[in-house]
Amino acid sequence: MSDRQSTKPARGTRDFLPDDLRRRDYVIGVVRDVYQRYGFEPLETPAFENIETLMGKYGEEGNQLIFKILKRGEGEKSGEANLALRYDLTVPLARVVAEHQATLPTLFRRYQIQPVWRADRPARGRFREFYQCDIDATGTTSPVAEAEILGAVSEILTSLGFSDFVIRLNHRGLLMALLDDAGVSETQHGDALVALDKLDKIGADGVAKEFAARGIPQDAGAKALANFVVGGPAAPGEAPGDTLARLRGVLGEHESLTNLNTIVDLAASTPAAGRIRVDPSLARGLSYYTGAIMEIAVEGIGSLGGGGRYDNLVGMFLGRPVPACGFSLGLERIIVVMTERGMFPPSVVTSAVDIVVTFLDDASRAEALKLAGELRAARFRVDVFPEASRKFDRPLKYASARGARVMAIFGENEVTRGEASLRNLTTREQIAVPRDKAVASISQLLTEISERRTTNDEPERRT
Amino acid sequence: MSDRQSTKPARGTRDFLPDDLRRRDYVIGVVRDVYQRYGFEPLETPAFENIETLMGKYGEEGNQLIFKILKRGEGEKSGEANLALRYDLTVPLARVVAEHQATLPTLFRRYQIQPVWRADRPARGRFREFYQCDIDATGTTSPVAEAEILGAVSEILTSLGFSDFVIRLNHRGLLMALLDDAGVSETQHGDALVALDKLDKIGADGVAKEFAARGIPQDAGAKALANFVVGGPAAPGEAPGDTLARLRGVLGEHESLTNLNTIVDLAASTPAAGRIRVDPSLARGLSYYTGAIMEIAVEGIGSLGGGGRYDNLVGMFLGRPVPACGFSLGLERIIVVMTERGMFPPSVVTSAVDIVVTFLDDASRAEALKLAGELRAARFRVDVFPEASRKFDRPLKYASARGARVMAIFGENEVTRGEASLRNLTTREQIAVPRDKAVASISQLLTEISERRTTNDEPERRT
Repeated sequence: MSDRQSTKPARGTRDFLPDDLRRRDYVIGVVRDVYQRYGFEPLETPAFENIETLMGKYGEEGNQLIFKILKRGEGEKSGEANLALRYDLTVPLARVVAEHQATLPTLFRRYQIQPVWRADRPARGRFREFYQCDIDATGTTSPVAEAEILGAVSEILTSLGFSDFVIRLNHRGLLMALLDDAGVSETQHGDALVALDKLDKIGADGVAKEFAARGIPQDAGAKALANFVVGGPAAPGEAPGDTLARLRGVLGEHESLTNLNTIVDLAASTPAAGRIRVDPSLARGLSYYTGAIMEIAVEGIGSLGGGGRYDNLVGMFLGRPVPACGFSLGLERIIVVMTERGMFPPSVVTSAVDIVVTFLDDASRAEALKLAGELRAARFRVDVFPEASRKFDRPLKYASARGARVMAIFGENEVTRGEASLRNLTTREQIAVPRDKAVASISQLLTEISERRTTNDEPERRT
Repeated sequence: MSDRQSTKPARGTRDFLPDDLRRRDYVIGVVRDVYQRYGFEPLETPAFENIETLMGKYGEEGNQLIFKILKRGEGEKSGEANLALRYDLTVPLARVVAEHQATLPTLFRRYQIQPVWRADRPARGRFREFYQCDIDATGTTSPVAEAEILGAVSEILTSLGFSDFVIRLNHRGLLMALLDDAGVSETQHGDALVALDKLDKIGADGVAKEFAARGIPQDAGAKALANFVVGGPAAPGEAPGDTLARLRGVLGEHESLTNLNTIVDLAASTPAAGRIRVDPSLARGLSYYTGAIMEIAVEGIGSLGGGGRYDNLVGMFLGRPVPACGFSLGLERIIVVMTERGMFPPSVVTSAVDIVVTFLDDASRAEALKLAGELRAARFRVDVFPEASRKFDRPLKYASARGARVMAIFGENEVTRGEASLRNLTTREQIAVPRDKAVASISQLLTEISERRTTNDEPERRT
């Protein structure tokens, strides 16, 4: 192999083989179906943008991680880059909202599912090419937007089979108010949030130490901690109303609490009902949120996605603020978790085709193609083994690799007698049926096989 | 605007807005459905490859058109490129077949629908980012592969509503044999084919002149022309068997004719039945074909895709030949033609949602969200207008822009009486129905509206 060219995909990228793609397509299919029923519209933007469109939008670190494309022609010699690969889906959305403002509705609800590229150091679970899956409702400050997004995301996770997720809900204004109330200066809010974010892991003492290390005055730190512990992380199962009441005890009435209360109330009329936990320790690290902050978490697994209201970003190219609320589903993570937990339907995981049709001699080829056509018209997935095989070894091996459950066989005998031979690949039983009953017989056979599978409660297999 | 940043997509690329994407997603949905029923499996490869993987694979011109990505870190200063954007789907397939040979079946049938990038000069209908849509059956020389591919592609076009397409079928061996027989030297085969390719347009005299201009000896040119005219372009409607018979008159029995005959015979058992015209003047310009060459054409429109057998390409990274037959559907062209001809179902083109739910006051919001949830559970596409509106102007304008046909309205009156108001947006009639009958009433209303539309035979509208 040494003198042969490498056939690996580029560092940090992956080939998506059929087994991988069936999983991903299944999840994306559910996501799109739900988002469309919630009135979100599809949007796609080009893989690359003019380099000025992206540079300076993601901070200094982001700039470093943007893949830059050489300008064609003279640029290939001078090393000048004039294009850059999509780094997220938010800046392209902001560009589209500005560019197409005349045609897009003011209330624009879009979903976008596309890969992004980041020149991060590849690591376990971290890739240089990965899918993002965003929804955003732009053009309104109404909390109906938050409630609808939480409803849609909950419906997706439920449809995918997640029964144990919790929506953590917080508000940037609440975070700020609790820190202000404690006397932490605005310039230290960021530092304080990084420390408080670890409350779950390192406890109150740990946070106090972090505060000190970050130069937050001791009394302000202690008060902040008290604010967060009193108002603080809800006990599992605590009703959002009770958490909000505890927080009202610290701050009195506050617009962030009113807003959260409304979101919780409205979400109760959506599939997010009963899922929400108000959690003041949720920071999500992103400074661009301006209102509600949300995250979907599964016990023992962590976050499957998050989002919130960010009213100052989508208008970046328009020169005026455009209110927006968005949510990014962790598509890659969801697929990993569903695979580990065996949550995919067997048809997605174990089988690429239902039936393989094979022929013993070239004279029987046409009959094999005809039956394949009839089966496909009946919406089965059918493969024709393309080479005449007197022995079954090759087509059987092939059918097994593809997860087929039935093989249909045509040879001189079958064609002469007007029959088809059908082999149940799970029991290896073979029967001959009249040719004109072949589709019905195969259909029945497949039903029997899948019923037996369900009865046996056979675990999902990976092929 | 002068001091504002440009918000245009990069040169030669396009934003796909919802109306565009609904069209594309519809076509891709049909394509995937058919390919899956034909046993083809999905494959996706990364947007970029190591630069060595792509360079030198597309000729000198191709090398120039490949987008190159700067190496991260020091490469940004030196101008060194180490990655390149996908230029087609065939080289990545060849790489995948080599890299994953241990896991992929020897008979690998895959479809791949992904964008590719070429630094071509943008022109009308020519973009720097565009989708390719390929199927390939690798690992077999059996003509069943050709027949199945022609069947699948025919089923796709029929499902999309094309009734007037023709499959032009030729064979590289036949082209060569007709030229050899005429005494055109192998080094001039390429030149001769370029000239013969124009037979339809410039006639026999024109081709003779081109032969002379390209230095093909007069007698060889004349004989070649005679071979192609005698055996030559089939009259519209000529049966493939008759064309093959005429060609047998020139060449006698020839393996290319036998192969074409088998493909035509087998395709008769697939949805390609009756579509094939054997056309010896089809060259398709690509030197890598080794067997059958095929193209799907529509009168007055031209090619919607093409392909053929190429047994020496997929093995390029393996160091041994891997037989393959493939077809590339002209996805972008198909969408343009379907749009021009009004071939999309109305639901794809005219409407993003079925129903907009609106509320007159904040107290009615929850009821609006509840009904939206019930309608979505009944599989309707539903939007909630997020802001309370005592007047209908804004929600009505919004509903109209989104192509909704029914608006559901909740205000104090409705909530108190346990009702929902429903407005037929096509007739502007408004009725009140009991709240618990709202889903059924809306469902009925939508059926009535769509039936009236069908009865009136209203032309497809673009929104």
